[in-house]
Amino acid sequence: MVKVGILGVGTVGESVARILLENADLIEARAGKKIVPVLGAVRDLSKPRDVGIPLTDDPDALIDSADVEIVVELMGGVEGPYRLVKKALRAGKPVVTANKALLAYHRYELQEIAGEIPLFYEASVAGGIPIIGALRNGLSANHIESIKGIMNGTCNYMLTKMIQEGVDYESVLKEAQELGYAEADPTFDVGGFDAAHKLLILGSIAYGIDAKPEDIIIEGIEEISPTDVEFAREFGYEIKLLGIAKKVEGGVEMRVHATMIPAGSMIAKVDGVMNAVSVVGDRVGETMFYGPGAGGDATASAVIADIVEIVRGNTGPMLGYKKGLESGFPLVAPEQIHSQYYLKLKVIDRPGVLASVTSTLGEHGISIESMLQKPSRVADHVRLLFTTHSCQEAKMKAAIRALRSLEVVDDQITMIRIEK
Amino acid sequence: MVKVGILGVGTVGESVARILLENADLIEARAGKKIVPVLGAVRDLSKPRDVGIPLTDDPDALIDSADVEIVVELMGGVEGPYRLVKKALRAGKPVVTANKALLAYHRYELQEIAGEIPLFYEASVAGGIPIIGALRNGLSANHIESIKGIMNGTCNYMLTKMIQEGVDYESVLKEAQELGYAEADPTFDVGGFDAAHKLLILGSIAYGIDAKPEDIIIEGIEEISPTDVEFAREFGYEIKLLGIAKKVEGGVEMRVHATMIPAGSMIAKVDGVMNAVSVVGDRVGETMFYGPGAGGDATASAVIADIVEIVRGNTGPMLGYKKGLESGFPLVAPEQIHSQYYLKLKVIDRPGVLASVTSTLGEHGISIESMLQKPSRVADHVRLLFTTHSCQEAKMKAAIRALRSLEVVDDQITMIRIEK
Repeated sequence: MVKVGILGVGTVGESVARILLENADLIEARAGKKIVPVLGAVRDLSKPRDVGIPLTDDPDALIDSADVEIVVELMGGVEGPYRLVKKALRAGKPVVTANKALLAYHRYELQEIAGEIPLFYEASVAGGIPIIGALRNGLSANHIESIKGIMNGTCNYMLTKMIQEGVDYESVLKEAQELGYAEADPTFDVGGFDAAHKLLILGSIAYGIDAKPEDIIIEGIEEISPTDVEFAREFGYEIKLLGIAKKVEGGVEMRVHATMIPAGSMIAKVDGVMNAVSVVGDRVGETMFYGPGAGGDATASAVIADIVEIVRGNTGPMLGYKKGLESGFPLVAPEQIHSQYYLKLKVIDRPGVLASVTSTLGEHGISIESMLQKPSRVADHVRLLFTTHSCQEAKMKAAIRALRSLEVVDDQITMIRIEK
Repeated sequence: MVKVGILGVGTVGESVARILLENADLIEARAGKKIVPVLGAVRDLSKPRDVGIPLTDDPDALIDSADVEIVVELMGGVEGPYRLVKKALRAGKPVVTANKALLAYHRYELQEIAGEIPLFYEASVAGGIPIIGALRNGLSANHIESIKGIMNGTCNYMLTKMIQEGVDYESVLKEAQELGYAEADPTFDVGGFDAAHKLLILGSIAYGIDAKPEDIIIEGIEEISPTDVEFAREFGYEIKLLGIAKKVEGGVEMRVHATMIPAGSMIAKVDGVMNAVSVVGDRVGETMFYGPGAGGDATASAVIADIVEIVRGNTGPMLGYKKGLESGFPLVAPEQIHSQYYLKLKVIDRPGVLASVTSTLGEHGISIESMLQKPSRVADHVRLLFTTHSCQEAKMKAAIRALRSLEVVDDQITMIRIEK
């Protein structure tokens, strides 16, 4: 029998305890030993719960308990769980965590501290999808060329609604909040931060890159309008919030932003709250992993898979490799990335305006791929929609500043990166 | 350093040797040790090859060699490799195989013989997609409710062509043969046998069912016509060759056949030679794993992933569990499965014919969901297309026999199962 303690018994923690009890026979057959949840730690013992295991409000006592052999960390937050996970590892107790924020900031220190003690985190990225296992194990023969993931269900739900029903951002956000898909303060999801934490974890397994959230481009979906969605469709794109990590000349680009992707690609077909991660390996080609990215039971499914692996005696290095993974592939600075871009401008409808816009782009070394003029709801104005050939982010940023300074161009310029 | 011997150095074996050499540093970083191919066994030493490792035509000598620590079996066939794999395991040497036919017939004996010696087979199902790892490890907390897989690239390529271009079976087969996607004798692929071998392997991991190919329904795509494809489209279906394993009341249905599936489902969107396996777990919900199901490098990617797992010291039970997995879920006999059905009949265009067809169906307890009459190219005939509500296979078979015996119905009746 292997005894498990759970730090943080919220939605996921309750699911972990319940599934371990309800699917006990099956899990024992797969793990080779009975796995039993014996103790949970919660902040507030007075809150009524029905989890079928004893509870404490002292997380240190849970880790210290001679009864607890594996520690499951589901608390949320960064520094609190960091201290506790370190303590468990130093006590020689394997840890399973679903905490992406913890790993986004401290995965390398934790790998160091863990050493040979298992520290598993399948649930931290894309919920129930076993993408960590796929990258650490299933694709281990490959240099990873790119990872493109829909890793935030809230954003994908909202974008799907906007695409399929033409609703605007504010209405769909309200609806998502009513359905419980978005928080009252939705910034962490719609601003791309949640997806960024996950991307950083995948980037470490694929490329061994120790980046923090502040090192990469993180943008959300707040600026996406029905016009953009409609334009995207006309040009054969869908708009998705993607986490992208890819090898380019001299480094690895990592970024999270709303992205126009070809409507025919597999990942463009992922709708609603579902998540998916497309991984291109130099030998295997494109693979994609699809499933629910959130939810108590789906996340608990990944947590328990990790516990089973530990009980089977399987370890392997935490981040999937034992020493420097590849040299010569540093993180590319945000301003140095290259992309194709979509630009939406509102300009005064007057002769010569188009010429001054296009010449401003040209002066910044930006070459136009396609252009569309549409009527604007504002009198005497028109909308100009461009897609560009690939150029450097810094040049695009400079061009946008220059466009804004033109008297005939409205301040509000939308820029969406295109990924083919 | 860990030394690998390769039994069978064809397309996949050459890729394994080449990738181990070309991606050596990366694989060493991930495995923790250098992995080196040291010897290959081939049938015909006189055939020119460029694989960069010494070759022998004596597979027994390869296994006996003190230099070979892990044996990779890529020979094809059943009884020859069975003897050699047993020999390697009995000598205490871990084995990696891509041989689905071997496993379709002998996986339970091999699990017994392997005991604690690793016997891995990620490459045996769906080529480069790490689906075995997902089922054995990533989804281990779940009772598996269903597995539905597109596991034969030849069939999926052909059906995609038929769907997208309206080509008929014979033309698309010829084209697939010219492109090297189909063999001169295509039966193994288009008849569903290849997919069946793979399904049986997945069925063992998910349900612990020891079935052989002869125990399950295996049908191919040879009977699919452009009319069926067109009808499917009109009713919102796509036709795919699916391997299906699913829990039903009192057992598990396993079958391989052309299937009409809702056009909006993720797996219906898998086109061309690509493979995908959708797995529904009782806790995680639906997940899907997508990628290349064949090809030297993609298959070698999976073979090497297994080697890395062995070198890391990870094992776990071969089929994913250590004792009887679940009781009370035997294989449902082929005649006892339940499905919705599509039927296509050619009948004489005469009053009363429709009544006699529908009453024949009614007498066999089959209830019609939708009906369509279309003109036939044969004079004085029409086509009747039905979909039915769910009924037992035995009743459908009896109804088809009864319909054939009607004088007004042409002998050639097409039946395609529908899966929602």
